[in-house]
Amino acid sequence: MQTALSYLVAARHQEIHELEQLNRTCELVRAVSELVHRLQNERGVSNVYLASGGQHDAARFDARITSSELTKADVLKWLEGIQPGEGLAGGSRLFTRIAIALNALEALPHIRENIRKRDGSPLKSSERYTRVIGSLLSLVFEAADVSVEPKVARLLVALFNLMQAKEYAGQERATGARAFAIGQVCAGDLKSLTDLIDLQEQCFARFETFCSQSVLSQWQALQATMPLADIERMRRKLMAANMQLDSALSETWFETCSQRMDDIHLVETHLTTGLQQACQLRIAQTQSELEDQQALLTDLSNARSMAPSCVLVSELAQAQGQPELLAGHAMGSRLTGAIFDTLQTQTRHLQAVSEELISVRAALDERKHIERAKGVLMAHQSLSEEEAYRLLRQKAMNQNLRLVDVAQSVLSIAEFLPKRS
Amino acid sequence: MQTALSYLVAARHQEIHELEQLNRTCELVRAVSELVHRLQNERGVSNVYLASGGQHDAARFDARITSSELTKADVLKWLEGIQPGEGLAGGSRLFTRIAIALNALEALPHIRENIRKRDGSPLKSSERYTRVIGSLLSLVFEAADVSVEPKVARLLVALFNLMQAKEYAGQERATGARAFAIGQVCAGDLKSLTDLIDLQEQCFARFETFCSQSVLSQWQALQATMPLADIERMRRKLMAANMQLDSALSETWFETCSQRMDDIHLVETHLTTGLQQACQLRIAQTQSELEDQQALLTDLSNARSMAPSCVLVSELAQAQGQPELLAGHAMGSRLTGAIFDTLQTQTRHLQAVSEELISVRAALDERKHIERAKGVLMAHQSLSEEEAYRLLRQKAMNQNLRLVDVAQSVLSIAEFLPKRS
Repeated sequence: MQTALSYLVAARHQEIHELEQLNRTCELVRAVSELVHRLQNERGVSNVYLASGGQHDAARFDARITSSELTKADVLKWLEGIQPGEGLAGGSRLFTRIAIALNALEALPHIRENIRKRDGSPLKSSERYTRVIGSLLSLVFEAADVSVEPKVARLLVALFNLMQAKEYAGQERATGARAFAIGQVCAGDLKSLTDLIDLQEQCFARFETFCSQSVLSQWQALQATMPLADIERMRRKLMAANMQLDSALSETWFETCSQRMDDIHLVETHLTTGLQQACQLRIAQTQSELEDQQALLTDLSNARSMAPSCVLVSELAQAQGQPELLAGHAMGSRLTGAIFDTLQTQTRHLQAVSEELISVRAALDERKHIERAKGVLMAHQSLSEEEAYRLLRQKAMNQNLRLVDVAQSVLSIAEFLPKRS
Repeated sequence: MQTALSYLVAARHQEIHELEQLNRTCELVRAVSELVHRLQNERGVSNVYLASGGQHDAARFDARITSSELTKADVLKWLEGIQPGEGLAGGSRLFTRIAIALNALEALPHIRENIRKRDGSPLKSSERYTRVIGSLLSLVFEAADVSVEPKVARLLVALFNLMQAKEYAGQERATGARAFAIGQVCAGDLKSLTDLIDLQEQCFARFETFCSQSVLSQWQALQATMPLADIERMRRKLMAANMQLDSALSETWFETCSQRMDDIHLVETHLTTGLQQACQLRIAQTQSELEDQQALLTDLSNARSMAPSCVLVSELAQAQGQPELLAGHAMGSRLTGAIFDTLQTQTRHLQAVSEELISVRAALDERKHIERAKGVLMAHQSLSEEEAYRLLRQKAMNQNLRLVDVAQSVLSIAEFLPKRS
């Protein structure tokens, strides 16, 4: 039983190591959420700047770039501080996502240079920013997917969905601003707006399912003060497709949407703080379990050296499920009882953890199926990402199915589809 | 882009480290599957020994104990050889399972002592062995659950199901032998036999879904030579509940079942060999990816120091998605193209891995739900494990539902159930 206990102690040491890696991953996620927010700001201002033909907001654009670069430098510096071997939770998968995100970030100087030269449309430059932001969001998604601590994994799923909702809100802001500026909504923009609003709502719902009570309260309180009615009123005008839009509303729309995004970011920050607290709490709990188990191990060695046979008898009685035989072996009985309880607790804990992770993973799996099905359609039908999404959604609506079910049926026949070259 | 590449190289290093941990876990699983087989043999012989009132097979029982102890010593020695920090895949969860299994193994001397003293029924001593074997099976299950390499995870799921099927076959052997020996089947044994045959078939089906083609071929070839018809004939006699059984068949039944279990164990051994080959293949593949990526990194440093601006222009053009600008920057173009391709490949690989794991996990999740629901019923209704299983199965049959769906509905109302003290 001493050997069993030693492995239990080794398991706690290992668990603390894993939680520390997870804690570091959460620090990275926090920095990434800040960088995404700055890049969304920069993208927004770049749109206004380009739409004005470079007349407005040149200085504001520069200020946004400086702000993004400062946060990017924080992320890079944080990454440099990671000792090799110390590692992050999720190991190789997270490192690969970091590589992909860093590669995407290196496009920024060129995106900005093009904007300053007013080379390319606001739409085109938006799309480039969106790709960079997408690679950062995928990093947060991966962090949630590889986390094996259910409470932290739940919060990471909440955070990813909140960030993804804000990103759709940012894309909606850009599309709406463009429409107000030219005074009308084209059919393509109208479809995009419908999709983006729909997607935001799905993400917010999932965020609400997985976030903590304290974040949910803050979110509900904040929504009461958000300019939601103003946004809905302007959305209604945008959606009335054949109407001439008041181009003076462009700026109001942009500012109102931006304020909402800043508010969402406040909740993100609250959530990332909660994430790190959850990690630290689990580390402290595991530390205390470790100390208890180490104390048991010491007691057992002492008892064995004092009265080996007595301990053996009590262990055997325990193993046999006959604790009544333990009478008269008081110390041994207390000890083996404690060891037995500890093992029982750990078994239940393992079972609970692995069960809780199932629901977390189900939430992530939906996105994986949909992303993968989009990829298949893009490759086989030469569609853009947006067109692929719309095709899936159309199928789902026509057949009254969930999007994820349509995605799965696409995946199940993927290997039979001809490949377009 | 150099930074992105460095992270890609770091990711490959980390991946190799993770695969080596997984390889070690597979070594442990191989040793555990051997130990389970020996303990099943020991349990079987102990039943015959007890049923004969200690007249038969005393020497054979001793020989089985020696054989189990030798294999147990292998497992313990292997565990001692694990360097702290080197670790196993699955870290803390697997270590906890090892602790639980080691603790269970410590009951063996006492189980054997009781058998030698002919203290307790064959049924009772079987149940004690079954608990020990169960803790070893849970270890294999955990190894499958924590594996993040889909090909290896699939084989671990196949192995777990094959081992679990053989364990049900062992329990069927014991129940049948008991019934033949006393010349009749009681109602409880009849139910048990039905369940055990049913459970074996489910496990074999899952094993066939997840094993490799080469293992499947061996399995199919072996089944042709297995004494399946003999077993089915004797099963039919057992199931004809009101008939007097020919007690002379007890030994034939026992030997035939044992031969089938030995055959199944052959396939297990083939499967564990395949597991380690799969690990080693993945390690070699990742090693070769690592070398390619390291070579790219060196090329990039050299190119940068020779012609920094040329490389920069080509990178920007690439980032912008305008490879036509690359003309005239031949070397930079080749390099950034290669880096771009590598990142694309890694992205697709990540997506594929995470998608493949979904189906593996679904197979494992079913068992988790069912185990957890059984636990809930055992706690709340004071049922034995077998009764809890039978209750779930009865509900499923009555309502024409899958067992896992009934389990999930039990879990969803678990918190509202009153706790029996």
